[in-house]
Amino acid sequence: MAKNAFYAQSGGVTAVINASACGVIEAARAHPDKIGKVYAGRNGIIGALTEDLIDTSQESDAAIAALRHTPSGAFGSCRYKLKSLEESKREYDRLMEVFKAHDIGYFFYNGGGDSADTCHKVSQLSERVGFPIQAIHIPKTVDNDLPITDNCPGFGSVAKYIAISTREASYDVRSMAKTSTKVFIIEVMGRHAGWIAAAGGLAADDENDIPIVILFPEVEFDEERFYARVKEMVEKYDYCSVVVSEGAKWPDGRFLAEQGTRDAFGHAQLGGAAPVVANMIKEALGYKYHWAVADYLQRAARHIASKTDVEQAYAVGRAAVEMALEGANAIMPTIVRKSSAPYAWEIGQAPLSEVANVEKMMPREFISENGFGITQACRDYLTPLIQGEDYPPYENGMPKYVTLKNAPVPRKLDDFAL
Amino acid sequence: MAKNAFYAQSGGVTAVINASACGVIEAARAHPDKIGKVYAGRNGIIGALTEDLIDTSQESDAAIAALRHTPSGAFGSCRYKLKSLEESKREYDRLMEVFKAHDIGYFFYNGGGDSADTCHKVSQLSERVGFPIQAIHIPKTVDNDLPITDNCPGFGSVAKYIAISTREASYDVRSMAKTSTKVFIIEVMGRHAGWIAAAGGLAADDENDIPIVILFPEVEFDEERFYARVKEMVEKYDYCSVVVSEGAKWPDGRFLAEQGTRDAFGHAQLGGAAPVVANMIKEALGYKYHWAVADYLQRAARHIASKTDVEQAYAVGRAAVEMALEGANAIMPTIVRKSSAPYAWEIGQAPLSEVANVEKMMPREFISENGFGITQACRDYLTPLIQGEDYPPYENGMPKYVTLKNAPVPRKLDDFAL
Repeated sequence: MAKNAFYAQSGGVTAVINASACGVIEAARAHPDKIGKVYAGRNGIIGALTEDLIDTSQESDAAIAALRHTPSGAFGSCRYKLKSLEESKREYDRLMEVFKAHDIGYFFYNGGGDSADTCHKVSQLSERVGFPIQAIHIPKTVDNDLPITDNCPGFGSVAKYIAISTREASYDVRSMAKTSTKVFIIEVMGRHAGWIAAAGGLAADDENDIPIVILFPEVEFDEERFYARVKEMVEKYDYCSVVVSEGAKWPDGRFLAEQGTRDAFGHAQLGGAAPVVANMIKEALGYKYHWAVADYLQRAARHIASKTDVEQAYAVGRAAVEMALEGANAIMPTIVRKSSAPYAWEIGQAPLSEVANVEKMMPREFISENGFGITQACRDYLTPLIQGEDYPPYENGMPKYVTLKNAPVPRKLDDFAL
Repeated sequence: MAKNAFYAQSGGVTAVINASACGVIEAARAHPDKIGKVYAGRNGIIGALTEDLIDTSQESDAAIAALRHTPSGAFGSCRYKLKSLEESKREYDRLMEVFKAHDIGYFFYNGGGDSADTCHKVSQLSERVGFPIQAIHIPKTVDNDLPITDNCPGFGSVAKYIAISTREASYDVRSMAKTSTKVFIIEVMGRHAGWIAAAGGLAADDENDIPIVILFPEVEFDEERFYARVKEMVEKYDYCSVVVSEGAKWPDGRFLAEQGTRDAFGHAQLGGAAPVVANMIKEALGYKYHWAVADYLQRAARHIASKTDVEQAYAVGRAAVEMALEGANAIMPTIVRKSSAPYAWEIGQAPLSEVANVEKMMPREFISENGFGITQACRDYLTPLIQGEDYPPYENGMPKYVTLKNAPVPRKLDDFAL
């Protein structure tokens, strides 16, 4: 009798995590002899813990296919970290109980570093208790910080969005610079690593001589050098674009965004590195500015997703199922770069023991010597990842995204308090 | 002998103002017997005042065609308002001097209300001094606040961007709401009128039951009613999206963005209605939030421009030239809506005496009774304006926008101090 599969989405969602879900479910549907139903966790792993499962077999093939072009997490995601097998013993035992009750033999967990760790532990526990679960982690993170895999699905689309938005806004400020705005500041995601900020550098190229100053989390912020650089750019070009990572920090380790701003009632600052940097430039150099904070817009922007990213997100979902059917356990499908130009990639795999809790930082040789830009090596790495457009279908001028029925699987167990 | 034409871009640029420039230049090139060269003002009207003219005849047909898909103002724009013929006599006299020196018989001015007024005055002065100039205003404004014309080129693309971005971010926050973000706030442009904010309402429709709370400049902000509405939505849907216009105001007339925030050095607030609203929600209701400020991204987003908007922007540019060739003066081509469903429009014209200095506000019947949403009448108005996609060409994953050579026309006059 074919075992059922469990699939869950974890952490911050992306423009293409549903493409991975699509890959998982379509691959599973192609093997009804080996995989029964695919149950999804409602709101991620919380759905497993509370036995709040979604029966994806109730969704039509068309609805599942539409996941490929729908941003966000169709089953809901969550931020809920399981700790060690000892500390979170109650939760891990519950997972086993739920998996047994619903005859689940496959655990597909779609997320970043923390979920790779959880996935690894589920696999270990399953061996220890003698209840066989093949646990496969499916990579997803806009932060691009998972090890071994050349890149993470989700990142390419954010990179494309930020590169395009920075180019478009730079054209805008260039038009206005004579009498109005001279500096445009865009804040991008990436609390720990500057991968997304680096993508802002792609706004400039041989045919687009745009002055861009990037503030990376990896580079200690030097106020005076920053002002000097912005001033130099404005004097040369009459304008300048600044891409600031939300993770950019003062030398003392505080984020730029935390500069002790208080409102009239003494409440803590309202957040945002972009307005802080804008104000600093205004005070130091007197330039008129505009600033934007892309926030969720950047990771939800399925309308301008990278075709490469969509294909890879789908492929890792599909590969997870295929690897499981070949007997794999405690692994993660990876993206292996065979060549940058022309770009060629294939699916590989990495043992979860080598993935869990390892963060891949941006190499120093990707950041220009002055610390404010990207190098050719960085361009060579990033450019393939934003290749191609994969437009969603439109109706009435709006993208037609799918909202699933998300029908619950009847419960069999008692309540579980989180 | 064919007279030359002068074209200038004025005020904040848009995703499609260059499509109007494309329409003007292509139409002029089609009539070499009647129009000599098209000179563009470098940085708008300032280029005319300082005799800093751009010879567009140096640009290839392909480069001019590429303006149709290039955002921003290709010749530079400016914020420089001419006042009455008396107060700004020196400037108006100078314009005449420059136009005479360069044998200019056509004045095409592409902008909003202020430039319509300038255009009107140039036409009046030209009659008064007996130097014939046909002055035609070409409508452009993301604010959609020009009278008589059914809508303004530039608005439809911002509306589409905001509607799509709000839908995408709403899908995202919906995914995260169980354990994380419950309220997403997006700030949009529109200091005087809520047209752009209204477009956020299009994120929801019959197939997308998304809770959206809009803060319009037209509706006095009632803090308690706002909290109650957000709470109601979060309790019903588990999340909520807020679209706040930069023009939203406290009952005493201050913008929401100006709430007296000071940084550690006592400097005035860093700006942004979105972070202010986010903080208010957090304090009053305790919901975790995320916020975005789209700023220039929204008006520069040619990558997701409305096809209708692009076509109309091009059409008003073309029509301006054709009307001039038919002898028109002191008019503005308008967009006339013949039918909403199916959408049908044609080009009309309005005398500048009726356009200048009149601001079109959003009708009250476009705002729902509770003040936080849009009505069906508003949807019927907005929906046609965001119809269709008009994707730019891509190369290496990035949109291929054109940067013109912008070769200067040799000067003939003395310097002029602004």
